[in-house]
Amino acid sequence: MSMIDESVSAPARVAEPGEGISVDELRLAARNHGMPLEALRYDVTPVGLHYLLTHYDIPALDPATWRLSVDGSVSRPLTIGLDDLHAREQVTQRVTLECAGNGRARLDPRPVSQPWLDEAVGTASWTGVRLADLLTEAGVSAGAVDVAFTGADRGVERGEEQTYRRGLPLGEALLPDVLLAYAMNGQPLPPQHGAPVRLVVPGWYGMAHVKWLMGVTVLDTPFDGYQNVTSYRLKQEPDDPGEPVTRILPKALIQPPGIPDFQSRTRIVDRGTVELTGRAWSGWAPVVAVEVSVNGGNSWHQASLGPQPDAYAWRAWTWTWDARSPGRYSLRARARDDAGNGQPVEAAWNRQGMANNHAQRVDVVVR
Amino acid sequence: MSMIDESVSAPARVAEPGEGISVDELRLAARNHGMPLEALRYDVTPVGLHYLLTHYDIPALDPATWRLSVDGSVSRPLTIGLDDLHAREQVTQRVTLECAGNGRARLDPRPVSQPWLDEAVGTASWTGVRLADLLTEAGVSAGAVDVAFTGADRGVERGEEQTYRRGLPLGEALLPDVLLAYAMNGQPLPPQHGAPVRLVVPGWYGMAHVKWLMGVTVLDTPFDGYQNVTSYRLKQEPDDPGEPVTRILPKALIQPPGIPDFQSRTRIVDRGTVELTGRAWSGWAPVVAVEVSVNGGNSWHQASLGPQPDAYAWRAWTWTWDARSPGRYSLRARARDDAGNGQPVEAAWNRQGMANNHAQRVDVVVR
Repeated sequence: MSMIDESVSAPARVAEPGEGISVDELRLAARNHGMPLEALRYDVTPVGLHYLLTHYDIPALDPATWRLSVDGSVSRPLTIGLDDLHAREQVTQRVTLECAGNGRARLDPRPVSQPWLDEAVGTASWTGVRLADLLTEAGVSAGAVDVAFTGADRGVERGEEQTYRRGLPLGEALLPDVLLAYAMNGQPLPPQHGAPVRLVVPGWYGMAHVKWLMGVTVLDTPFDGYQNVTSYRLKQEPDDPGEPVTRILPKALIQPPGIPDFQSRTRIVDRGTVELTGRAWSGWAPVVAVEVSVNGGNSWHQASLGPQPDAYAWRAWTWTWDARSPGRYSLRARARDDAGNGQPVEAAWNRQGMANNHAQRVDVVVR
Repeated sequence: MSMIDESVSAPARVAEPGEGISVDELRLAARNHGMPLEALRYDVTPVGLHYLLTHYDIPALDPATWRLSVDGSVSRPLTIGLDDLHAREQVTQRVTLECAGNGRARLDPRPVSQPWLDEAVGTASWTGVRLADLLTEAGVSAGAVDVAFTGADRGVERGEEQTYRRGLPLGEALLPDVLLAYAMNGQPLPPQHGAPVRLVVPGWYGMAHVKWLMGVTVLDTPFDGYQNVTSYRLKQEPDDPGEPVTRILPKALIQPPGIPDFQSRTRIVDRGTVELTGRAWSGWAPVVAVEVSVNGGNSWHQASLGPQPDAYAWRAWTWTWDARSPGRYSLRARARDDAGNGQPVEAAWNRQGMANNHAQRVDVVVR
């Protein structure tokens, strides 16, 4: 490990004031990708348009030899192949996933990591088996508190070599909507989304949905791995332990109207009636309201909500804009959920740039 | 058009010395995406891992009502639906596509546009009909010189509002490998790759492969649209007319060995024998040689080449590295094709950052 010094794997840092995006951050942005915002038109995001964040490399697993172990504080450890999973009761759910770092590159100062703007989101139809069924079959011990999920992807992060591993409280892991998914939008999982099997934890930010799943380990002490204890924390100072990132805060996104400029992505809209539309979601409770502003947040208008599909899938919204006067407009949208969570108009800062649900801004020129 | 001033759609520019990546460039990098380099392992790139560059927005076309017009200097103009295309003789070809702007963000000074590093490439299996068959059926007039291809995607670029449109010399358009493709990797085209039908011009950089194809127009004067005359030119000065960007220059890429650091993407490799592998391609002629360097280009080793698949698909290569000494290494690779084209080790600069085939660099720590 002595070769892995700070020149290879530097500590987390925050950009200097005015510091442009570095080549390191750009390399991450070129590998990973957001959902182009026009894809907000789809109820279910087509494969290849869904956002994607890979911590290390996408592994190549052979579905024929892949085995999942379910072990730890259980009375009957299991080893399960893909055929075994296919033979079990199948569940399909539409779920919106969002990266916990979405919006990070909007923060000032900017936490240096994957530099997301607004696009790290997508909604897929996931098919698989209930994790609770497997845990019940394995027989969870009485003192169990957490479940750790281990992927096949290995790398170094902030100096710590690791296989991607996340813990989930047992109560969350036993919820009936948590899936071991082997299909996405009716097709076998593509490699980049965790083939052959991934975890899907509806309502949680993306880091919980462990891809390339190899192991499920029931723990009778709290999970203390890097991805829960060091990363994915809401903190202000480096030494602040911070609160864990868990469920997705409410957010609305606007499908940008009109046509774009290539470089600035400013939208050009012909004056007249513009049907603004978009999606909104929350991992805490159903979205109950979306408001739209065309003047940067000075005044707000109530949007109409479409039906709520499965509990943790985004909900369509529409609002008719009477864009009669040429000029520049700053469109914003904000959602509120049934648990009383809303969206701040401006970003609240935290050191890792996590769980930012400030209101998106779309610059429009009406002509 | 008066609302579209330089604050909305600025002229092309080159970054200042030391200027970091801007939010404009980052927004493009978050929308578009490269192929994660570990996907060099696949002969055919899975959907969602293939690189993607969208000039404006991905349009939503209804395959049931989509019609392609073939018109201009022809004796029998055609209007063709998707069922008509499916009923014709079907051709499948494996083709490597690379964005003409690949490598742009490595240039110094950096042309400000989509900021690709090394990853804007992918190889797919395209199925469709020969363009030459349709042109023959339409009856190309004797004086024809170019064919213009019009997509459904519309936007503004450097102040000019346009529907994406590219011209191709008639002689190139009549080559038997040029396809109107309706399937990718055996599935209907996904929206982001041009559904329902796109052009595939094997050997040419990506700009020629017009997506969301709506019109094929035979011209008896040279095509003078923006994407041929203003953009996709090799020039040194803004007013220099420059040479057009056409076929893909040879390039080899290395599949990064070992495991990555999350932020720097530096590779960590255990000392011993390392089987280095990657792909190489050229749009001019088959690749006949790949050389590998582990010392930044000071000395080179001949790699072994795998079989050449279809003429314009990448070719695998391997070279065994005896990585016995811990330390830092700079891996590079370069290809040469049968037409005598090679790769420069350092980037040759041009103002739009087009057709850059300088040798990739992979930083490795052997421990």
